[in-house]
Amino acid sequence: MRVPESLRELDWELPHNFLGLDEAASAFETARVVILPVPYEATTSFGAGTSAGPAAILEASRYIELYDQELDSEPYEVGIATLPALSLPGSGPAEAVAELRAAYDRLLDAADGKFVIALGGEHSISSAPILAWADRLQQRGRRLTVLQFDAHTDLRPDYEGSPYSHASVMARVQDRVELVAVGIRALTADEMKLVRKAENIHLFLADDIHTGDAWHDDVLARLGEDVYISFDVDGFDPSLVPSTGTPEPGGLLWYPVLKLLRRVFQERTVHAVDIVELAPIPGLSAPDFLVAKLLYKMIGYRFS
Amino acid sequence: MRVPESLRELDWELPHNFLGLDEAASAFETARVVILPVPYEATTSFGAGTSAGPAAILEASRYIELYDQELDSEPYEVGIATLPALSLPGSGPAEAVAELRAAYDRLLDAADGKFVIALGGEHSISSAPILAWADRLQQRGRRLTVLQFDAHTDLRPDYEGSPYSHASVMARVQDRVELVAVGIRALTADEMKLVRKAENIHLFLADDIHTGDAWHDDVLARLGEDVYISFDVDGFDPSLVPSTGTPEPGGLLWYPVLKLLRRVFQERTVHAVDIVELAPIPGLSAPDFLVAKLLYKMIGYRFS
Amino acid sequence: MRVPESLRELDWELPHNFLGLDEAASAFETARVVILPVPYEATTSFGAGTSAGPAAILEASRYIELYDQELDSEPYEVGIATLPALSLPGSGPAEAVAELRAAYDRLLDAADGKFVIALGGEHSISSAPILAWADRLQQRGRRLTVLQFDAHTDLRPDYEGSPYSHASVMARVQDRVELVAVGIRALTADEMKLVRKAENIHLFLADDIHTGDAWHDDVLARLGEDVYISFDVDGFDPSLVPSTGTPEPGGLLWYPVLKLLRRVFQERTVHAVDIVELAPIPGLSAPDFLVAKLLYKMIGYRFS
Amino acid sequence: MRVPESLRELDWELPHNFLGLDEAASAFETARVVILPVPYEATTSFGAGTSAGPAAILEASRYIELYDQELDSEPYEVGIATLPALSLPGSGPAEAVAELRAAYDRLLDAADGKFVIALGGEHSISSAPILAWADRLQQRGRRLTVLQFDAHTDLRPDYEGSPYSHASVMARVQDRVELVAVGIRALTADEMKLVRKAENIHLFLADDIHTGDAWHDDVLARLGEDVYISFDVDGFDPSLVPSTGTPEPGGLLWYPVLKLLRRVFQERTVHAVDIVELAPIPGLSAPDFLVAKLLYKMIGYRFS
Amino acid sequence: MRVPESLRELDWELPHNFLGLDEAASAFETARVVILPVPYEATTSFGAGTSAGPAAILEASRYIELYDQELDSEPYEVGIATLPALSLPGSGPAEAVAELRAAYDRLLDAADGKFVIALGGEHSISSAPILAWADRLQQRGRRLTVLQFDAHTDLRPDYEGSPYSHASVMARVQDRVELVAVGIRALTADEMKLVRKAENIHLFLADDIHTGDAWHDDVLARLGEDVYISFDVDGFDPSLVPSTGTPEPGGLLWYPVLKLLRRVFQERTVHAVDIVELAPIPGLSAPDFLVAKLLYKMIGYRFS
Amino acid sequence: MRVPESLRELDWELPHNFLGLDEAASAFETARVVILPVPYEATTSFGAGTSAGPAAILEASRYIELYDQELDSEPYEVGIATLPALSLPGSGPAEAVAELRAAYDRLLDAADGKFVIALGGEHSISSAPILAWADRLQQRGRRLTVLQFDAHTDLRPDYEGSPYSHASVMARVQDRVELVAVGIRALTADEMKLVRKAENIHLFLADDIHTGDAWHDDVLARLGEDVYISFDVDGFDPSLVPSTGTPEPGGLLWYPVLKLLRRVFQERTVHAVDIVELAPIPGLSAPDFLVAKLLYKMIGYRFS
Repeated sequence: MRVPESLRELDWELPHNFLGLDEAASAFETARVVILPVPYEATTSFGAGTSAGPAAILEASRYIELYDQELDSEPYEVGIATLPALSLPGSGPAEAVAELRAAYDRLLDAADGKFVIALGGEHSISSAPILAWADRLQQRGRRLTVLQFDAHTDLRPDYEGSPYSHASVMARVQDRVELVAVGIRALTADEMKLVRKAENIHLFLADDIHTGDAWHDDVLARLGEDVYISFDVDGFDPSLVPSTGTPEPGGLLWYPVLKLLRRVFQERTVHAVDIVELAPIPGLSAPDFLVAKLLYKMIGYRFS
Repeated sequence: MRVPESLRELDWELPHNFLGLDEAASAFETARVVILPVPYEATTSFGAGTSAGPAAILEASRYIELYDQELDSEPYEVGIATLPALSLPGSGPAEAVAELRAAYDRLLDAADGKFVIALGGEHSISSAPILAWADRLQQRGRRLTVLQFDAHTDLRPDYEGSPYSHASVMARVQDRVELVAVGIRALTADEMKLVRKAENIHLFLADDIHTGDAWHDDVLARLGEDVYISFDVDGFDPSLVPSTGTPEPGGLLWYPVLKLLRRVFQERTVHAVDIVELAPIPGLSAPDFLVAKLLYKMIGYRFS
Repeated sequence: MRVPESLRELDWELPHNFLGLDEAASAFETARVVILPVPYEATTSFGAGTSAGPAAILEASRYIELYDQELDSEPYEVGIATLPALSLPGSGPAEAVAELRAAYDRLLDAADGKFVIALGGEHSISSAPILAWADRLQQRGRRLTVLQFDAHTDLRPDYEGSPYSHASVMARVQDRVELVAVGIRALTADEMKLVRKAENIHLFLADDIHTGDAWHDDVLARLGEDVYISFDVDGFDPSLVPSTGTPEPGGLLWYPVLKLLRRVFQERTVHAVDIVELAPIPGLSAPDFLVAKLLYKMIGYRFS
Repeated sequence: MRVPESLRELDWELPHNFLGLDEAASAFETARVVILPVPYEATTSFGAGTSAGPAAILEASRYIELYDQELDSEPYEVGIATLPALSLPGSGPAEAVAELRAAYDRLLDAADGKFVIALGGEHSISSAPILAWADRLQQRGRRLTVLQFDAHTDLRPDYEGSPYSHASVMARVQDRVELVAVGIRALTADEMKLVRKAENIHLFLADDIHTGDAWHDDVLARLGEDVYISFDVDGFDPSLVPSTGTPEPGGLLWYPVLKLLRRVFQERTVHAVDIVELAPIPGLSAPDFLVAKLLYKMIGYRFS
Repeated sequence: MRVPESLRELDWELPHNFLGLDEAASAFETARVVILPVPYEATTSFGAGTSAGPAAILEASRYIELYDQELDSEPYEVGIATLPALSLPGSGPAEAVAELRAAYDRLLDAADGKFVIALGGEHSISSAPILAWADRLQQRGRRLTVLQFDAHTDLRPDYEGSPYSHASVMARVQDRVELVAVGIRALTADEMKLVRKAENIHLFLADDIHTGDAWHDDVLARLGEDVYISFDVDGFDPSLVPSTGTPEPGGLLWYPVLKLLRRVFQERTVHAVDIVELAPIPGLSAPDFLVAKLLYKMIGYRFS
Repeated sequence: MRVPESLRELDWELPHNFLGLDEAASAFETARVVILPVPYEATTSFGAGTSAGPAAILEASRYIELYDQELDSEPYEVGIATLPALSLPGSGPAEAVAELRAAYDRLLDAADGKFVIALGGEHSISSAPILAWADRLQQRGRRLTVLQFDAHTDLRPDYEGSPYSHASVMARVQDRVELVAVGIRALTADEMKLVRKAENIHLFLADDIHTGDAWHDDVLARLGEDVYISFDVDGFDPSLVPSTGTPEPGGLLWYPVLKLLRRVFQERTVHAVDIVELAPIPGLSAPDFLVAKLLYKMIGYRFS
C-alpha cells in the first residue's frame, strides 16, 4: 500500500527493506544493488529455521548505521533495492533449484549490471546463481571462481537421498567452477579424497587458519579474476553465529573475515554474492545483526 | 520498492500487510477498512513488548483464511489497507497521545468514512482515537459509548507519575463518553468507588459473567447507538492470551466474545476499534493468531 | 546397543520408547500396538518444527502413568512397540508420500493385525496410510471412513505449488473414502463449495460444536463400520496445544474429544490412527504431554 | 540494607515481598499472615525448575491489585510478612524434610497464631508442615484433614529410590490425617488399590468433576473441622498452568477452584496452606500471576 | 521485613543485594561502595528489556566468588550497599533525567565520599551522574573526563524526537567534559564530523584496537586526573554480551578491558561509574554474570 | 525394540547413541570406547539443567562428521558403545556418589580395557570414577594425576551443607591424587590457601594463560604418567559454552584446549575421562555441538 499523499508527512516507521531505506534510495530502477531473499528450506539436517533467515537479516539491518567508519562513507548511497521474498513452491529441492535458476536469470536480465545478493534459506539454493554466473562468464570465455565461506565442504554427491541438498551444493557446481573454500572444519573422508584429487578445489581448513592472516595471500592467489562469494554463515565461529543448523566449533572471526573480503573486492571482480544458512534463534538477535552488517560491509567494499 | 514489471509474475511471498492482501485489495484509496499500527510503549508495568504487538498481529494474519465460515463470505473483499506503523517519538506519554490525536484526525479526514482500526502498543494510545470520535459525534449532537474489553478498569487518575499511562486511559476519557467495560477483574478500591458514583460507567466483572451469555443483553442495554470498541487483549483469559503485560486469571473466552461482538456490530453503529496490549512471546504464536483472527472477525461483522 | 548381561541390573533410565517400556512390553513380535514415527516436514505454512513432534511425544510419554483410572486398567499390557523414526528423504512431498506408502504396506504385512499408529510430522503424510487402508478394505468390498480431527479441511487441490502439501492431504484421499471432519474452523470458499457438493464429506464446524456433546451422536451416525482416525493436533484449542503451525482459536477441548473417541472405538472398528502436526515449543512441554496422553487413551479405548 | 533516612522519600521500587508491601504492612511482628518460601527441589521427574517457583510467585505478586472486587476489601491490610527463602541444604530429601520440619516448628512457635503459607519448591516439602499440624492438633485431641489439589495422588511408598520424593509425599502423611484429594488424574494401579482400601482417603478424580460444581458439597462433606490445604499447581489444567513438572491434561479451572476454596475457608478452620510445584517457564509469566493471585485469594477468604 | 530474632539462625538464602552480602557488609552507613539500580527504559531502538538489567546483574552477582585471585583479596570487605531500584516515573526522558539528577545529588550528599555505581537501564540515564560530577569538580576548578566504553558514540543531537535519548547521552554532556570513547564501531557521518572538529572528544574505534593493547597508553594519555566511567555493555563483543539492544559485531574482549580498567583505576581518580544497556535474555545468564563480575572487578581495582 | 528383519532395510533414522552409529560400530562387546551418561543433578548453585546434559550431547553428536580432518581418519572405527543413562536415585549426593562408584567398578570390570567416558550431570559425580582409578593404580603402585579443566577449583570442604557437592568434588579426591587444574578463575580465599600449601595441587589460572600456549609445557611437566581428565565445560569461555550453571568470563578457547589435549593423549596414558556440567539452553544447540565434538576429538586423540 502506498501511503496517500495527505498522510505522507506523518512519522511512519522505517520501511521494511534492507537498512530501512526510503523510496528514493531503494527503488529498483536506480539501485546498483539488489537483494533477493530466498527463504527456501527443505533439507537442513539439525534444527530448523533457515526460512526465517532473510526476514531476520532485513529486520536487524534497519538498525544499522548508514555511515561506515572504516570506509568513511555511506555505502547505501549507491541505492539498494530489496525484493520481496521469492517463493520456491515446487515439489522438491531439484524443482526448487530449477525455479530459482529461472527467476535468477530473469532478475539478471532485468537488473542489468546491478550487484545481486541472494539471501537464503539453506545452502542448496546457491547452485542456481553460481551456475547462472558460470554460464554467463563462459559465454565470454571466462571461468568463475566460487569463494565459499563455510564450515562444511558441501561436496557430497547426495545427502539424505537428494543430490540437491544443502550438503551437496558444491558438488552440483564443482565441475563448472574453481572452488576456494575457507573455514572448512567438517567433511567426510570421501569429500577429502575428492578434494585431494580435484585440481580446481582448494580448502583452507579452519584448523590451519585460526591465527593470524598470513593465509589471506594464499586465498587471493587461488582466486581467478571473476569471483562469486557464497557465504554460509556457519563459517563463522558459533560464538558469533550460533544461529545455524550445524554449528561447528573453531570457526572464523569477524575482523579476519572483513579484512579478507575487503581485499577480494578490491583485487578481484566480485559478480554476485549469497549469504545462507542463518537460522535465527528467537530472542537472540546478535547473530542477525552480524549477518546484516556483513552484508552491508560487502556492499561497501564493492563500491568503494 | 515496487517490483519491476518484468519480474512481477515470479512467485513472490505474500505482501506484509493484514492478511497478506495484494495491491488491489489493500489500496488505501479503495479500501473500506484502514488498519493503523501504533506500536507505542512507554509505561507498561510488568514484562514488556507491546511495541512488538502490531507486527506480530500482521505477521500472523498472513496465514488466516480469507473465507469466514460463520458469515459464509470473504470479508476482505471490502478492501483492507494497512498503513505503516506510526512512530510517536515525543518525549513522553502526554506528547505521544497528542501526536497520535493529530495523526488520527488527519487520518479520519483522509479516510473519509473508512472503518479505522488502531493496533497498539499499549492501552494509553486509546484516548486519542476515543476523544477524536467523541468530538466528532458531539459536533453532531451525539455521545459516544466506549465498549471496553479489559481485565483492568484503567481508571486511575494517574499511574507511576503519569496521567497518560495505560492504567489511566479510561480516566482520560470518562467524562466525555459512556463507558461499558467487560471482563474486568483487577481494579483499585478507589476505582471501584469512582465506578459506583459515576452514572456513565458500567462494569461487567469477570467474576459475574464467566458462565453463559445471559449478560449480553445487559451489555447491549448499556450501549448507546454510537460505539467505539477498545479491546485490551488482557480481557481474554490468559490461557488464550498469555502474551500481555499483566495477565489476570479468570478472563473472557473466545466464543462468548465473538457472540457479543457480532450482536454489537449488528445492533449498533461501531465507528472505530482499537486492539491493544498484545506483547508477543517469542516462539508462542497462538495468541498472535487469535488476535489477528479477532480483528478479521470484527471486520466481517462490521460489513455483513 | 544391548547392555551386557553383567550390567543389566544397574539402575538404567527408562528406555526411549513410548511409555519407556521394557523389552518384554515393547518387543515388535508380541506387541499388539506398533507406533511408527514419521517426522516428515516439508510444506508447513507458518512456524516450523513438526519434524520434532514424534520425539517430543515419545519423550513426554515416558512420564505418563501406565494405569488408566477411567478404564481401571493398564492398557500397555497389550504390548506397544515403538519403531525408530522413518526417514523420507525423497526429493519432494510426492516422493515422500510414495515412500511412506511403500513402507507402510510393508509394515502392515509385517505387523499382521497389530494396531498401527503413525506419528507425524506434517499432515501430508496421512494420505499414505489412509490409502493403504482404503485399498485393503476395498479388496474386502468395504469402504473406509476417515474421522479427521482438524482445524482445517485440508481439501485444497494443491497448496504452494504442490498437490501433496499438508493443506491438500484430504483432497488426495477424498474420492476413495467417506470423510467426517470434526473441529473445522478454517477453510477456503472453494473448499466449502466442494464440501457442499460432495456427498461423502461431512464437516462438524467448531463454531457449531463448542458446547455440549449432543453432536457426538451425529458424528457416529456419519461413520461407517471401518474407521481410520487422522488426528491433526490443531483440532484442539490453542490454549491446550499452541504447539502447531497454524493455531486457530476456538478449538476442541479435552474431555469432549475423549468422550467421542471412546464411543468411536467402542461402536466402530478403528483400523489405524495417525497423530500429526505437533510442532513442539522449546520449554513448553504441556502440549507434548497432552498428545502423548491422547495416544495412550486411544490405545486404552481400542483394547478395552 | 535499610535506606538511610535522608533518601527515604525518593521514588524507590516496591519492596520485593509478596504484593510489594511497605514495611508497615509486611512486618513479621504485626502481620497475621506469614509466607515462607521453600525453593527445595531434588526429585522432580521431568523438566525442572520448581526451585524458581517462590521467586516467580513473589515477583508476579508485586503487580497484583491490593483490592479484591469479589470481597470488596483489601485483604493485605491484615499484614503479610514474607520471609527470605529457606535453604534446605542437607544431603538428601529425608534430611531436607527433617530440616524443614524443625524450621517450621520454630516458625509456628514464633508466629503465634499467624496464618502460615509455605511456597515450594517440590511437593515433597509438604509432609513437614502437614505433620507439624497433625501433631499440634493431636495434642488437642483433634485430627487434621489434608485437602490436596493435585493431578497425582503422590501416594507411592517410594519413587526413584526415595521414600521422600514428591511422588510419595502423601504416603508419608496418610496414616496421620484424613486425606481429600481433588483433581486427581494420574495414579498407579497400586495407588488406586491403596485408596480403595483406605477409609481415610477420598479422591475426586478430574474425570468425574470437570463439569459443574455439584461435587463441592461432597468435598465439604469429607472435610473435618481442621483443614490443611496442600495445593500442587499441577491440579490446574495445563492451559492455565503449563509451568509444572508433569502437566496432565484435563485439570481444574479457575472459578470452580475459587468457589470451592471460598466455601472451605468459610465453613472450616484452615490452619495453614502450601502451594507447590510451580516451575516457571522463562518468558511466560501468566501462570506465575495465576498462582500469586490464588495465594492472595486464599488470604482474602481466610480473613473475610 | 526483618527476620525475627528467634528465626535468625535458620538457613536463609543469601540476601538479594550485590554479592548476596549480609547486613554488616552491606549497610549503607559503613559501606564505601553504593550501588544504585536505575532500571529506566524509554527509548531503546531495537529489542527491549534494559529495565530488567539491574535485577539480572544483582541476581547473578550472588553466585560470584568474594575472593579475587588477580588481586589476592576479598574486595567486598570495604562494604557494598545496594539501594533499592530507583523509579523515574516522569512523563518522558527529559523529566526522567532531571529526576535522576536530583536523586543522584541527594545520594552524593548522603553518601559522603562513597564510591557510587549506577546500574542502568538505558544509557540516557548517564547524563545525570556525569553532569553531577562535572558540576562538583568545576566548583573545585577541575574538569571531568568521561571514559566511555561503547559501540556507539551516542553523540546525536537528538534521536527519535528526543534530545534525551540513549543515542544522545554524550551530546548532552560533551560541552562540559573531556570525552574518551573506547570500542566505537557504529556512528553517523554527522557524529564523525562532530568528533573531528571537537578537541575534547577522542574516539578509539574498535576497528583500530581489536588486536593487542598498545592503544592502552594512548587512552591513558587522553584521560585527565578526574575520571567518570560510563560503561555501555554493548562495547563488549556480542559473543560475550549479546544481551543488549543493538549488538554490533567486532567489539571489546574481556581481558583487554580488565587490563585497561586496572590501569585507569591505578593511575587516575575514578569518581564514579555507571554500567548500562544490559537487556537480559531469558535463559541466557552468562552475560549477566560477566557484567556482575565486571562491576566487582572495578570495585576491586578501585580499592586495591 | 529390535526392528524385525523384514523392516530392516527401510530408511530409519540414525540410532540414538553417540554419533548415531549402527549396531556393528556401537556394540559393547567389540567397542574400545564406552560412554556412560550420568545425568545426576542435585546441588548445582545457579540455573539448573545439567541432568539434560548427556542427552543433549548425544543428540548433537548424531550430526557430527565421522571423519576428522586433523587426524585424517575416522576415529569411530574403534567402536563406541553408548550405555543408557545411569540413574542415581539415592536419597542424596553421598549415596549417589557411592552408587556411581559401585556401578563404575562393575563397568570397569565388564569393560576390560575399554576407554570409559562418563558424561555428567554435575561435577559431583567425578569423584567416583577418579577414586576408582586411583584405587586401581595404587594397587599397581602408581599414582593418578587428575587433569581438571574448570573455572572453579571445587576444593571446598563442603558446600551448601554437603561434602559431596559439585563445589567440593576435588576436595573429595585431592589427598589421593596429583591435581592439575587448568582455566581456574573463581575460587575462595580458603581454597587458595589450601592450594598454596598443597604440594600435589597445581593451578593454571585463566588470568595467566589466556594468551599463547607456552603454558602447555608447564602443564605437561606437572602431569604424571597416569592421567584422568575431568572436564567441567565451564572451563571454556562462556562465549563458547554459556550453557552451564555458573558461567565465568575469561575462559578457555577451542584451539588451545585441543592442542593441549592432543599432547596429553600423545605423551601420557589417559585412563578415563569425564565431561560434566553442560546445562543445555533450549534453542541454543551450539554449545551442545561443541561438547560433542570435544568428546569425539578426545576419542580421536586417544586412538591415533
